[in-house]
Formats: sequence, C-alpha cells, structure tokens
Amino acid sequence: MSKKIKTGIIGLGRIGQIHLSNLLFYTQNAEVVIASDVSPATHDYARRLGVQQVTTSAEEVLTHPGVEAVIICAPTPQHVPYTIAAAREKKHIFCEKPLDVTLSTIRLAQQAVEENGVKLMLGFNRRFDPNFSRIGALVRENRIGAPQILRITSRDPAPPPLEYVKVSGGLFLDMSIHDFDMARFITGSEIKEVFVKGDALIDPRIKQYNDIDTAIIVLTFENGAIGVIDNSRKAVYGYDQRLEIFGSEGMAKAENNTPDNITLHNNKIVQTALPLHFFLERYEKAYRTCMQSFIDCIVNDTPSPVDAHDGLMATAAGLAAGISLKENRTVKMEEIIKTQ
Amino acid sequence: MSKKIKTGIIGLGRIGQIHLSNLLFYTQNAEVVIASDVSPATHDYARRLGVQQVTTSAEEVLTHPGVEAVIICAPTPQHVPYTIAAAREKKHIFCEKPLDVTLSTIRLAQQAVEENGVKLMLGFNRRFDPNFSRIGALVRENRIGAPQILRITSRDPAPPPLEYVKVSGGLFLDMSIHDFDMARFITGSEIKEVFVKGDALIDPRIKQYNDIDTAIIVLTFENGAIGVIDNSRKAVYGYDQRLEIFGSEGMAKAENNTPDNITLHNNKIVQTALPLHFFLERYEKAYRTCMQSFIDCIVNDTPSPVDAHDGLMATAAGLAAGISLKENRTVKMEEIIKTQ
Amino acid sequence: MSKKIKTGIIGLGRIGQIHLSNLLFYTQNAEVVIASDVSPATHDYARRLGVQQVTTSAEEVLTHPGVEAVIICAPTPQHVPYTIAAAREKKHIFCEKPLDVTLSTIRLAQQAVEENGVKLMLGFNRRFDPNFSRIGALVRENRIGAPQILRITSRDPAPPPLEYVKVSGGLFLDMSIHDFDMARFITGSEIKEVFVKGDALIDPRIKQYNDIDTAIIVLTFENGAIGVIDNSRKAVYGYDQRLEIFGSEGMAKAENNTPDNITLHNNKIVQTALPLHFFLERYEKAYRTCMQSFIDCIVNDTPSPVDAHDGLMATAAGLAAGISLKENRTVKMEEIIKTQ
Amino acid sequence: MSKKIKTGIIGLGRIGQIHLSNLLFYTQNAEVVIASDVSPATHDYARRLGVQQVTTSAEEVLTHPGVEAVIICAPTPQHVPYTIAAAREKKHIFCEKPLDVTLSTIRLAQQAVEENGVKLMLGFNRRFDPNFSRIGALVRENRIGAPQILRITSRDPAPPPLEYVKVSGGLFLDMSIHDFDMARFITGSEIKEVFVKGDALIDPRIKQYNDIDTAIIVLTFENGAIGVIDNSRKAVYGYDQRLEIFGSEGMAKAENNTPDNITLHNNKIVQTALPLHFFLERYEKAYRTCMQSFIDCIVNDTPSPVDAHDGLMATAAGLAAGISLKENRTVKMEEIIKTQ
Repeated sequence: MSKKIKTGIIGLGRIGQIHLSNLLFYTQNAEVVIASDVSPATHDYARRLGVQQVTTSAEEVLTHPGVEAVIICAPTPQHVPYTIAAAREKKHIFCEKPLDVTLSTIRLAQQAVEENGVKLMLGFNRRFDPNFSRIGALVRENRIGAPQILRITSRDPAPPPLEYVKVSGGLFLDMSIHDFDMARFITGSEIKEVFVKGDALIDPRIKQYNDIDTAIIVLTFENGAIGVIDNSRKAVYGYDQRLEIFGSEGMAKAENNTPDNITLHNNKIVQTALPLHFFLERYEKAYRTCMQSFIDCIVNDTPSPVDAHDGLMATAAGLAAGISLKENRTVKMEEIIKTQ
Repeated sequence: MSKKIKTGIIGLGRIGQIHLSNLLFYTQNAEVVIASDVSPATHDYARRLGVQQVTTSAEEVLTHPGVEAVIICAPTPQHVPYTIAAAREKKHIFCEKPLDVTLSTIRLAQQAVEENGVKLMLGFNRRFDPNFSRIGALVRENRIGAPQILRITSRDPAPPPLEYVKVSGGLFLDMSIHDFDMARFITGSEIKEVFVKGDALIDPRIKQYNDIDTAIIVLTFENGAIGVIDNSRKAVYGYDQRLEIFGSEGMAKAENNTPDNITLHNNKIVQTALPLHFFLERYEKAYRTCMQSFIDCIVNDTPSPVDAHDGLMATAAGLAAGISLKENRTVKMEEIIKTQ
Repeated sequence: MSKKIKTGIIGLGRIGQIHLSNLLFYTQNAEVVIASDVSPATHDYARRLGVQQVTTSAEEVLTHPGVEAVIICAPTPQHVPYTIAAAREKKHIFCEKPLDVTLSTIRLAQQAVEENGVKLMLGFNRRFDPNFSRIGALVRENRIGAPQILRITSRDPAPPPLEYVKVSGGLFLDMSIHDFDMARFITGSEIKEVFVKGDALIDPRIKQYNDIDTAIIVLTFENGAIGVIDNSRKAVYGYDQRLEIFGSEGMAKAENNTPDNITLHNNKIVQTALPLHFFLERYEKAYRTCMQSFIDCIVNDTPSPVDAHDGLMATAAGLAAGISLKENRTVKMEEIIKTQ
Repeated sequence: MSKKIKTGIIGLGRIGQIHLSNLLFYTQNAEVVIASDVSPATHDYARRLGVQQVTTSAEEVLTHPGVEAVIICAPTPQHVPYTIAAAREKKHIFCEKPLDVTLSTIRLAQQAVEENGVKLMLGFNRRFDPNFSRIGALVRENRIGAPQILRITSRDPAPPPLEYVKVSGGLFLDMSIHDFDMARFITGSEIKEVFVKGDALIDPRIKQYNDIDTAIIVLTFENGAIGVIDNSRKAVYGYDQRLEIFGSEGMAKAENNTPDNITLHNNKIVQTALPLHFFLERYEKAYRTCMQSFIDCIVNDTPSPVDAHDGLMATAAGLAAGISLKENRTVKMEEIIKTQ
C-alpha cells in the first residue's frame, strides 16, 4: 500500500483548523500525529477530530521523532524561525503565507530548506482553486497564445478590524500578496515593474496606520505582458474574486462562484445569487487540493509547487507597491530585490 | 442593378405598419407602390412614410397593374379570399398567419397558388429570429445528432382582452400555432400526434369562451422525436420565448433576449434585466429578415421558405390540440388531416 | 454537550460508502457503531475509515443493542423487510429509495414505523440540493405566487448496462422516481394524473426488457398546476438536472452546476464548462445535508422530512407512468393507489 | 404637429452614411435637405435614399438657407473650421469625435458656439448604448453608492492598416478617447491624473509611428474614485466592450452583446456566441439614439448632452496619456489644460 506521511501541525487558529480537518478527512496518504497551539482553548477541536497528541509547545512538534512533515499555521513572525527549525530536523514544511515581510529573512528560510534537502510549500491556496488552476493550465497549454493583458479583481466583503490593520503589514502584504502570486502563476512570468494608485475610500481611519483600502495596481511582466489588479476591502455584495487573461490567440475569464445557480424572475427584476461569502466558502476546494499537493510532492518526491522563491517574489511585489504608492512612481522589482 | 420588386400592402394595423416600415427602410430590392386599409385613420401613417397611393380598397391593391407582390395583413377571414384573388392576378403573396382555421379553406389557397405559379409565403416570422434560425441551422448541420427531445417555452406577458379571446380562435390557433410551426421547423419533421393538458389558471372568465390560458402540449414526430410546448398567457416577468433541442450528439438551447447585458450587485441580490417586453421588441429583427426573405425568394426565384403546406400543418396541429384537450386523449394528426 | 446518535449501516456499495463517509466526516451529532455488507470485499473500506465493527450480517446491525438508527443501503427487495425489522427493534431508519416497487409492501413498512413510533426517512437526496431546496423554499415563501407550470429536466450522462436495466424496475421507478418526488416537493401538491410519451431512442435493445430510454411525462397536480418532466438516459454533455417553476407572480429556475466558472474565448467560439459529470459530483452537498437532516430529526424529535408517504406517492407515480405509456392514456393516481 | 428640423450632412464616408440613414429612417422630427462629400462616388448612396440635393461642396451645406442643423462627418482637421462656419451661420452642429487634437483649437470652436448661441453635440455615441447609458443612470440614481473603482475594457477585433495608424493621432486620441469620455460620463467626475503602461505587443511595426497597440491606463478622478482602462487593438474573439463601476453600495457591470443567446452542448464543450463583431454592430442602437438626442435637444431647446467641454476633456486626457507613456510618470490633467 502507499505510504502515509506523518504530519504535525503548529497553530490551531482558523486556518490551522482548516488544514487539520483537510488532512484528516480529505487528504490521501497523510495522517496527523501531533498538533500544537499556545492557547489550550483550541486543543479540544483537535482532540474531538481524533488527534492523539495535542500540546502547547511548537517545539514538541518540530522535534517529534515520528513527524515527517510540519504544517506551520503560527503567526507570521514565527514562520521563518519554525521553518528553519523544521528544516534542520529534516522535516518537510508547509507554511502559511507570507513566509515573511522582509526579503533577507525569507532568504534565511530558503537557505535552510536547500541545505537540508527538505521540501517547503507555501499556502498560496488560490493556485489550486478550480477556476484559477484551470486558467493557469489553459495558458500553459497555449490556448490563449502569448499573454498580453492580465486583469485580477480581488475584493473582500468587509474590512478587517482596525486592530488587525495595525499589525497586518498593510493591504499589499496582507491582501494583494495573493494577487501578486496569482499574477506570476497565471502569466508564467516574473513581475518587472509595479505602479499603484490607492486611497482610503471606505474608512478614512485606516490612514492612521499608513494603510489604504482601495487600490489599482499596474504590473509589467518580464515577458512583455501588462496587468492590473484592483483591490477593495469592502464589496457589499460579497467576496469578489475574478481573473482574466488576454492573449494573442484568445481570452480566458473566471467569474465568481455562487451558492446556487438559480434565477428568480418577478415583474420587476431577475435575481441571481450573490458570490460565495468569503474565502472559507470560496476556496474550500482549493484548501483541500492545496494540502493534497503538499503531501503528493513528498510522496512522489517532486518539486514543491509553491516554493520559497514564490514567497520571496510575492513579498517583494508587495514592498514595491508600498513604495510606488508613497512616491507616486513606477518601482522596478530589481530595485527591491537588490537592496534587501 | 438588381431588380426592385413592386409591392402593395393590404391592412395597416399594427402588423401591417411593421411590414410597411420594414419594406421601406430595411428591405433590399423592394418598393411599396400602394397601401390599403378600410380605416382611413391609418392612411396618414403610410403617407408620412412616403407611400404615394393609399386607399380604402383592398381590391385596388389586388388588381393594381404595377404591383408584383401583395402583403396581406387583413383579418384572418380575408386571408384566403385575398390570397386566391392575388394568385389569379399572378401576384406573389406574403400572408400573415394563420392562413385560415379550416384545412379545406387553406387547401383552396394552396391550389390557387400552385395553379397560377406564384409564390406564397406565410408570416411565421420566428423562423427568422437570430436565436431560432441559428438553432434550426445547427440541427440541419447535424451538430446535435438525431433530435430526441424538443422543448419550447412560449409565454406572453399579459393575456389579451376578453373581447379578443372571443374571436381569437383559441389559445392553440392564436398563440401555440407559432410554436407548432417552430416545432416542425426545428426538428425538420412532421408532427404525428398531439396531447394536451391545459386549464384557465390565470383568469377563469376565459372558460366562458371555451378557451384556456395555460397549456402543456406533448408532440410526437414522424422522425421519432418527442417534444413539449408550455404556453401561458401571463408571465409577469415579460415575454418568455425559449427553445431547446436535445439529440444523440448534443443539445442547443436558446435563452431569452434582454434589453441590456448588465448585472447590478448590491448587498442583498444580483439583478439582471427582464426579457424584452413583447413580440415587437423580441422579434424586431425577425420581422425584417422575414420580409427580406420574401423579396429574395421572388428575386432569385427560389421556393418560399414558409409555404401553404406549413400553414396547413400548423393549423392542423392547433385543431388536434383542441380535440385532445376536450377529450383528454392523444390525437393523431392524420385523424385531423383526413377528415377536413 | 449535544447527544451523538449511534448509527449502524447496512450495505457498503457505492451509495453505502457515500453515506458512511458523510456520517463520519460531515455529520454533526452522529457516530457509526457498526457496518455490514454481504461482500467482505467492501469491509476494508469501512475499517480504514475507522469503523470498529464490520460484519457480513445485516441482522447484527438490526439487533445491535447500541445502535439507535439504521442506514439501509441494501438492494431494494430488502428495504421493507429491514425497515420492519429495525422498526420492531425501535431503531430509527434511513432507507434508500425506492422503499419498494409495490404499494402494498410500502404500506407494511409504513405501518411498522407508525406502530413502533420510530422515524423513517427516505434517501430522496435531491430535496437537499442547494438549487432545488432553495427553489422549494422560494415557492413556500410565496415568491412565485400560485404554481402554474413545473418543468423538470433530468437526463443521465450514459445509460446503465443492459443487465442493470433488466432488474432496475424500469425508467420510471429507477430514474423518474426522483423527479416525481421533486415534483411533489417543489409544488407542495399531490400528483393527480400522469401521462407519458416515451421511446427507446438511444438503444433499441432496451425494448427487450419492456423499457424505454427517453420520456416526456405530463403531470397534473391537485392544486391545479401542470408539469412536465423530460428524461433521457444519455445526454452526451453530461448530467443534466434542471428545474423551473412558473407561477402567478414569477418564475424560479435552476441551471446546471459546473466544475468551474470559466469562459474561454478564441477566434471561433466562446467555450464554457460542461455540467458536473454525474450524481456523485452534482449531489455531493445534497448527500451530506440529507444525512445531517436525518440525524437532526432524531436529535430534535421533529418529523422526518421525507417519510413513507413520500415514498409511496413517488412509487405510485412511477407505476401510473408505466400504465400510461403502455395504454397511451392519462392515468389518474387514485386508480393506482386504490387498486394496490 | 411637431416641428421637423432641417439638416444638412457633410461627409458621406462610413460614419456619414450611418448618420444619414439614421436621420432618414429612425429619427423623429428630422429631415435631410442636403448632403455633401468631396468624392462624387459617395453621392449615389445619398441619392438612392432620397436626398434631393447632393454636392461636392461643404460650403453649400454650411450656407444653405434652409438648413437648421449641420452634421459634420468630414475628416478631423475640418471639424473645427466647419463648426465655426456653421455657428456663424447660426446653425446647430453635430460633430464627429474628436473635435480636434489640440486644446486651443477646440477652444475656438467652443467660443464660436457660445457666441452664436447654437448647440454643439459631439458624436460620443457610446453614451447612448443601452448598456452604458443604463449604468450611467444607475450611478446617478445612487444605486451603487459613491463610485470607488471604474473598470473599462475596450478592445478592437483587428488593428487598423498601418497607413491609418500614421494619421490616426495615436491609440489614445483615436481609440482611448471614447473610453476617456465614458469614464467621465459614468463616474460623473472630471479626470484628475493619468498614468499609462503600454506597448506594441501585437505588431512591432506600429512603433515606427511612435504608437502602441496595447495599454493599461490608470485614472484618478476629482471625486476620489480610481479607474483603469485596458485597450488592445486586436482581440481575436471580436469587439470587446465591457464596463464595471464599483461603489460603496454595490457594483454594476456590463458584459458584451452577442448576436444570439444560444448555448450548444456537445460531449466536449459548451459553446456560446462570440461578441458582436465591431462598432457598427455593437453600437447600432447607440448611433440611432445619439442622433435622436441631437434633434431632441434642438426641438426642446435643452442643453446638448455632449458638448464642447466634453470634447476638450477627452482630448486632454488623450494628450496626458501620451506624455505619461513617454515619460513613465503620472500626468496631472491641469498640467495639460493650463499649458495648451
């Protein structure tokens, strides 16, 4: 029979719980040996799902002799330290995004992973969304020809609490970072330049934290394509996640997913469903496929589908966006990458 | 340059006005020499559009030496008499549907047309609708394989006045007759049997006139396919004209047309446009193409795309439907055709 | 904490495996104590998912002192015997459809359930599909007014093997039965009359077994509405499950679900996704909600959402359809119900 | 009866012919007294439609004593001279876009129009497209709240010949100018800043003429909104004209129009229609409504719906875009308006 990868999970917050239940119920060839969270209140969730060993110590997971792969869902500042520790223990690593908000720190993780010959996969789950993964495949199969224009719409249903904004790293590193990764994934090209126009159009209080809630981000790519991302922290109609890639031979376009496919006609209007509410609903399948892909790359010894370089480039784009907004100018990616 | 067909039009009611303006503004190779209507109140419309000769006498049109083709938009009882008169004058004929509600009378028109070697085209304009004509072409190009199931939805936005119901010939000969013609056109097969379930679900007063306002009509075809038409006199959301043909190799489906392609999203719903209001809006292009097709079949001396046989079969299906409803049984078409 | 219902499952074929994994991974307040299947080859599946006791004996499940609810996924002939046995053991029952193909036998099960005060729920899972359950709710909330026309399209992607056809009970009891139940569920009314036109248009060999593969079924309802079901055993484009209910105040319509929401444009066509392949994909969520509803009605002591009467009426409609097809006439439901 | 406005038309090229036939066949309260074109080859078209006086001299139209309103469809360099001449003759003016490519020249026309108290309407026909005019109305009715993000996609089916590119004024003044006008129309706000990324991705030869064929244009508006236009000279799937406005209370989105509403399903794909081919098909209705609006504003003595200021601002945005592309920086509109 096929081998089962023994995993340990660090962090049982919202995203940790998703990964845990996916590992238990939907992932082939995986089992969960141990789970940790600093808050004992979360332990009951893991125990009820049948995890035998639950602890407050991340260290216990990182050094557990039976664990082959670690799932890091701790807060961002711990991402790189835990990644390095796990790598040294020769454990494969799945780490939530962003790997870090500083390029030099990301490079430390990258180095540790390479030196120890383990796999590192980052949680850019949207690459595994049925819509977006299929569009990526269509581009790679040359179904749209040479990419020329990329359009990403990525809008949240409601802004996060101001306390969260304070520590979020800002719109570009917290929210747009997913779109930067998607831009690279879909075009199959590195970003070359970034230009941003943005403002606090939803809630001016966000400016206290040097942040914005609405942005249009122009990207140029190494392969010549140009792209645009539009971000908003508040789409009253729900989570808006659309993407379009236009090329010399055609165009592929992904619309939102909805909870049903019903139209209701009355004497005034025709009504259809709002998009699925937020990322848990919209990316439910993406989270599952994402975790399966991690286990698969270990079992089959294939390269990680989302590696440290991917994390570095997405963060670099976020940093470039911040400078562009502040200085009202185009920022070259090499300007960021060379100086950090 | 190509020849211009000289036409004369009889009847300047709603449908006559449509044909007149289409002949004048949208039809290649046609001109209008004379127009008639028993009501002088309608004459001004024709004069303003530039028709030189306008009269109260249909006879004048039918016998006008300069007229090559007659457009008959008079009430149904005049359809066959005018058709026969025009045929004897060696004029081509475009006649509004239904040709008549009695098969033997239709056969008289058919005979006159054949004997005099003129063309007769019936105003089953829906065959020329961009949606339905394209589906017909897809079937004939074998894109859906052998037809197996046909579905037609045909619902009006509002019931006609009761006074009209009285003289309408009933739902089947007034409204479903278009759908019977469409069924033959799309499947490319004759109807074999008719079965109906129907009721007065919208307004019970319609029963006074032995009529109904809601019906489901099952058709079997000579080629083995089966079909269903659903009719309603009142769809509160507007004119509902959809069609679907399902075959061994695929399915083609036409949705309603709408005045715009907008979606409006707010925090409660996503809203799209209602269908186009009624037949004038929905079949605007069909009316134009229909009239052009009539002129074309004269200019090119090709067979009429909708001939007397088509009129006979549609009426026969309407008569069969009436018997099926009354006797709650399947009625064979040959039962109708042989006995009238 | 809330009580967990202890369940035992009989039958580990395809549908039994779905119910088992749903009970284990997706159902709140349920656990699985024991599973049985006459074929030991299926036992490994249950064991791997963690079921402690797996047996070849249905009897063991039916009499297991720890079991509070039995899930019957055995072949149809065992449905009623097992239902009666479980009822006598005072166990609640979830039974796959159809309960039986004979009304008198169904009534025996109905009686046993009533006498023993247990709940019986039938596996008409489509009632729990997000599209159809929402349309049912819209009708009950009077959002479309008085129902007048119901349209159900229900087409399979490929016909079953001829060996299956032989024992299937025929199209109406095997396939249309779901649609009969859906018709009653959506209109909220009993079926009054049934009329069928059908044929073997896909594979004539099916006629050897007195069966057909294509049908149009006209229903009249006690509340005056009329409806039509179209069935095909082979839609080359995949599983086609659509529904439309038209009423005095509006219309609600459910389109197919698709694996993605992508359009691909090239210089010839615009291409979108085929419907989800078959019932496992399409009704994945419905199966889960269905099982949860069963457990909920036990925990909350509410009536079963799909009871023995529902099973009886769906089977009766299937029997009426068979007679209508054979005798080419409308068959009243009371004719069936009174004579069996 | 209502007054008929006597018009004269200058220029019988493609667009002149459209305006002429719309005036003759679709416009209430208008007649055409005279038409001119320097090329006698075009005269036959006008004569066949019934225009009594056709000439090679624009002067004759401009000074014709019976003409109340002039339709200028001559090449761009004549737009302002003819506008000034017509204004001095106290004739109302409909002029094709752009009024001119130099702001100071536009101001001369603006002055002449004001001094002579005549109306000037520019041919920004897209404002009258059923999709876009309705979205404009939704914004003004506050149905989407405060505008925050505007997205316009405007892509041609094929690039123009290189000889045309040479004299076109470049992508921004030839093609994007429509989108700049649309941006102002939809947001109801003036443009404040322009930023462009663009390239010759379709045909590098276009660079010889200092032009590009692909662009992403970021706009900021006086009311705080931000917007993005994406332009391409070659969408292989046809004319792509979409628009989306996102605000604090909702979002309105216009998809492309198509020649039919058919889906064709086979065993591999579901296929729908390509967008309408190009501007003649797509904006057929817009052209009609546009001309009617011009006549209406004369008959009712209401302000021109698209005046000289609108022409000035659209041209200014085009000029700003050119500088932004060349200098890779944000260009403020006031920088353009103050220095020309």
